[in-house]
Amino acid sequence: MAAEVSPLIKPSRLRRREGLWGECLAEFLGTLVLIAFGCGVVAMTVAALPGSGRTSGPTTFFWGAGDWLLITWGWAFAVVFGVYVAGGVSGAHLNPAVTLAFAVRRRFAWVKVAPYMLSQLLGAFTGAALVYGVYHDAINTFDAAMKGPKTNGHTLASFSIFGTFPAPYFHGGIWGPLIDQIVGTAFLVMLIVAVVDLRNTAVKANLGPLIIGFVVAAIGMSYGANAGYAINPARDFGPRLFTWAAGWGDLAMPGTSAGSFSNYFWIPIVGPLVGGVIGVLVYDLFIGDVLHMRAQEGAELEIGVTRPQKGTDEE
Amino acid sequence: MAAEVSPLIKPSRLRRREGLWGECLAEFLGTLVLIAFGCGVVAMTVAALPGSGRTSGPTTFFWGAGDWLLITWGWAFAVVFGVYVAGGVSGAHLNPAVTLAFAVRRRFAWVKVAPYMLSQLLGAFTGAALVYGVYHDAINTFDAAMKGPKTNGHTLASFSIFGTFPAPYFHGGIWGPLIDQIVGTAFLVMLIVAVVDLRNTAVKANLGPLIIGFVVAAIGMSYGANAGYAINPARDFGPRLFTWAAGWGDLAMPGTSAGSFSNYFWIPIVGPLVGGVIGVLVYDLFIGDVLHMRAQEGAELEIGVTRPQKGTDEE
Amino acid sequence: MAAEVSPLIKPSRLRRREGLWGECLAEFLGTLVLIAFGCGVVAMTVAALPGSGRTSGPTTFFWGAGDWLLITWGWAFAVVFGVYVAGGVSGAHLNPAVTLAFAVRRRFAWVKVAPYMLSQLLGAFTGAALVYGVYHDAINTFDAAMKGPKTNGHTLASFSIFGTFPAPYFHGGIWGPLIDQIVGTAFLVMLIVAVVDLRNTAVKANLGPLIIGFVVAAIGMSYGANAGYAINPARDFGPRLFTWAAGWGDLAMPGTSAGSFSNYFWIPIVGPLVGGVIGVLVYDLFIGDVLHMRAQEGAELEIGVTRPQKGTDEE
Amino acid sequence: MAAEVSPLIKPSRLRRREGLWGECLAEFLGTLVLIAFGCGVVAMTVAALPGSGRTSGPTTFFWGAGDWLLITWGWAFAVVFGVYVAGGVSGAHLNPAVTLAFAVRRRFAWVKVAPYMLSQLLGAFTGAALVYGVYHDAINTFDAAMKGPKTNGHTLASFSIFGTFPAPYFHGGIWGPLIDQIVGTAFLVMLIVAVVDLRNTAVKANLGPLIIGFVVAAIGMSYGANAGYAINPARDFGPRLFTWAAGWGDLAMPGTSAGSFSNYFWIPIVGPLVGGVIGVLVYDLFIGDVLHMRAQEGAELEIGVTRPQKGTDEE
Repeated sequence: MAAEVSPLIKPSRLRRREGLWGECLAEFLGTLVLIAFGCGVVAMTVAALPGSGRTSGPTTFFWGAGDWLLITWGWAFAVVFGVYVAGGVSGAHLNPAVTLAFAVRRRFAWVKVAPYMLSQLLGAFTGAALVYGVYHDAINTFDAAMKGPKTNGHTLASFSIFGTFPAPYFHGGIWGPLIDQIVGTAFLVMLIVAVVDLRNTAVKANLGPLIIGFVVAAIGMSYGANAGYAINPARDFGPRLFTWAAGWGDLAMPGTSAGSFSNYFWIPIVGPLVGGVIGVLVYDLFIGDVLHMRAQEGAELEIGVTRPQKGTDEE
Repeated sequence: MAAEVSPLIKPSRLRRREGLWGECLAEFLGTLVLIAFGCGVVAMTVAALPGSGRTSGPTTFFWGAGDWLLITWGWAFAVVFGVYVAGGVSGAHLNPAVTLAFAVRRRFAWVKVAPYMLSQLLGAFTGAALVYGVYHDAINTFDAAMKGPKTNGHTLASFSIFGTFPAPYFHGGIWGPLIDQIVGTAFLVMLIVAVVDLRNTAVKANLGPLIIGFVVAAIGMSYGANAGYAINPARDFGPRLFTWAAGWGDLAMPGTSAGSFSNYFWIPIVGPLVGGVIGVLVYDLFIGDVLHMRAQEGAELEIGVTRPQKGTDEE
Repeated sequence: MAAEVSPLIKPSRLRRREGLWGECLAEFLGTLVLIAFGCGVVAMTVAALPGSGRTSGPTTFFWGAGDWLLITWGWAFAVVFGVYVAGGVSGAHLNPAVTLAFAVRRRFAWVKVAPYMLSQLLGAFTGAALVYGVYHDAINTFDAAMKGPKTNGHTLASFSIFGTFPAPYFHGGIWGPLIDQIVGTAFLVMLIVAVVDLRNTAVKANLGPLIIGFVVAAIGMSYGANAGYAINPARDFGPRLFTWAAGWGDLAMPGTSAGSFSNYFWIPIVGPLVGGVIGVLVYDLFIGDVLHMRAQEGAELEIGVTRPQKGTDEE
Repeated sequence: MAAEVSPLIKPSRLRRREGLWGECLAEFLGTLVLIAFGCGVVAMTVAALPGSGRTSGPTTFFWGAGDWLLITWGWAFAVVFGVYVAGGVSGAHLNPAVTLAFAVRRRFAWVKVAPYMLSQLLGAFTGAALVYGVYHDAINTFDAAMKGPKTNGHTLASFSIFGTFPAPYFHGGIWGPLIDQIVGTAFLVMLIVAVVDLRNTAVKANLGPLIIGFVVAAIGMSYGANAGYAINPARDFGPRLFTWAAGWGDLAMPGTSAGSFSNYFWIPIVGPLVGGVIGVLVYDLFIGDVLHMRAQEGAELEIGVTRPQKGTDEE
């Protein structure tokens, strides 16, 4: 047998690379779906439903609860189907913050981190281009009707279809939106690792993607309007790059807020990367370590090292 | 035993035809349910809830986010239950674009394509008639109260209960709505084949119909208001034929848009048929082929042709 | 052993009666939950959320899309949890129209029909009393602030919390609401028998109650505002009896509509009973019989009577 | 072997304490998640979406149906993910009323009751602090813009983000909100014990947390606006303590209502504790005892004590 193995090593290496290539294709298409539906629902709310998204004053743009429900459900389904598309191939991270957190605490191979992240970014960029392709006429009609300052005819309101910026009540400060992105992504990763943790109540029947979509619905409903709940560097930076190239200019890069702070673009990159790692660490500290200890105890019991000591606290 | 087989061949052939007949009955009833609930929820929003669907000017009809949520949830459940009704018998295509795509890339027998499509069209026509039966008084009261141009007393707003037309921002152009229909149906078929792909994270516990309904919710929320998200030739053409016969006349056939373009009826037929095939091809190109290759590799490993070479990239 | 059996016959008969008694308790509590949550969400929308339920003119009461979403989700969850409570004991009919249809076509014992229906009616009556108990102050405050005709200080708007009446566009006609109730309940029963049909795509993982709740969401979203989607004689008549006794008088019994037609109370009784039977018959005609034939064919194949003739149309 | 056991007793005791310690950590983090998302969505609706939460007059604050849908979905997902985080470790009570009811009727060890409750309270307090940290700027901007009476610059409207108070139509009475809390929590516990009851239709595929979240959605949609649906002493008292310390003063403690009644704080503590026990008792009386009897009968049948007497009523 050993003689036969040797000629097979090469194709196998090829296959291994093909494995990563397939995973990158999946991350690309999954993130494309995520952004095509996610930015799509904001385009719908901003530019296609004239009864929604009331404007008041030159650049301020208001959401009502109905608008917000539409946006949060739409983004939730965007996640659900991004994950269903890519799940079986790449694990469907679709988010550099998830990839980093999984590398730090879930044994995801560090060598794959950069290819995954790049694929996610390319998928997000392409998804944004697709949204612009379909909504081109709606966006131009909307921007033409808007009053107030514009860059190449584009407004901050139409930029909100693609990229994020903080609410006016932060008055251009850095810490408010940064904390928001850290907290939001910490919850995102904490809840993802919870619902896929087989030692915990991991969702079965392949409904994990649905419940992970609901995680993003929850974050959107409870924290989303602070700074647009990017909670994903690719989700924000991909469409931001696209809009920067497509004419939104400095509204996209370096990124402006309704207040005086500019150079906003790095916050939805750094905040999520930091927050994701915090999320998995907090989960492991409070939950994962206990489950790990229990699992070990169970294994010890099985191999007879200790005697079962099940008391009332184990019911 | 062989002697007994011969007289049984004929009934078996009969049975085989009964098989297709049963599938056509299922496609008919499933599509009827789809349209009865789908057009039903638009009838509700347009004609039965006076607080919804604000009109502004003669023919323009505006949706707010709340209206849109109601419509998208209603259509989602219409799909869910159309699929639950027909799923066990015919596979519940309920959509010629799905049938065509499955014939092109999922070995669905070409001989069944025309009978399936005809059953879907008849089901959609009958479903529309049922909606008109139940909402007759509501629609007539609504149309009588509307101002602006009418055909036989009917308005474009009440036509929107049954058939689709593009948003005013397309200014009567062909390409905008056509691209919208292609993209929307490409996503529809891509996501359907994803959530039923047993090599991927296929939904279990017979909850596939629910998740497929959510696919349509996602498309409706993110792309629906562009051109009414027909994404299904039967869904649009069946009710269009019915309303054409029931008095909406040229609003239905050849179909008008809010702009100057008419002869609209073929776009929600051609767009979805093209888009559906694109959807399954893109899925296979990015996801399906990788899963196929992996499955083959797995089979090879099992029969001992190659030695397992599981490295860090296979975790 | 035979000697031992004889003394056990009596307790067993007792047990059998206890069986029915347990089922009646479950139908009572399940229907109570159904009404306590269902009428509760209408009470919320009408009397507790001042931003909802706009009034216009003396007796007309308008719903917007947001109100309708709240009501339809609320009734859906009312069904979900009524079914979860009673499901394991009685099968959770919670609806005389379901009980009748199951007796006609699903071998539900005719001897149990009357006890089930009575338990459902008592549960609905008690559920309505509970809603009135909790919302007493809200309803009185609301009715005091309303203008227009009142019966003992109560309005048609507050009656809508408990019982149903047709939309004004029916102009007091009988046939419109009667057809609406027949069609709505036909779909209700057709979809229930579909999602629990083990030969079809029956929902697993004990999520049937969730999906059955979504059936009622679908009917509410697509047909509910015509005549209040009673689609259940107990759901309408139980609360109607309660409000009649609690002071709503002729608004409840014989029941009034916004138009000239009165004596409305029998329509949400007769319509659902007829519609439910139609629903199961249509399901069996189009779907159930085909599945039955297939199952028999499969059994024949297994016992070797016929030779497998699987062709391309069976994939 | 016996010789080896003795030195193991000590670590095992340690482990047992670690078991409770792990459960307390899980209750803490789960309740933190519950409050961080639950109070978060109210913060969103009140302070971050300017189109929502209309004010009218000095202290009265109105919700529309859209606001209420956002709040009820948000709280539902808060429960879903609180339970997914803690479920595998502690059973995810997250609510002293659930803990008490489970101690009374579900053999939850009384010795754990106080540690569980304390962990829940600490988690709720910390979750509220986190919401305040993220929404600090939004809340201050909102309160500054509000008119009417304030405590240290804070309003009753911004207090509603954290704690509960009764609707104005109770006119400051005790019994209305107290009955509301008893009824709401009775339904909460009744439905939780129903959906986890393995003898009934217990939710499988580890989707119990989702359905339990929908229980809270149902209660919120049908009863929530009466008195803010605390239905959980920790959910109300934790954030109340935090806001009392953070400057809301007597709006939080002893708690004020829109009417004349004050000292409100104890109602969302006592009402839920009483209601939860009632809920499990009613469930057992109507459902659980019948299922228990059936299970015993089944066991008897299996061991041959009685002869099967399956009649038509057992189908």
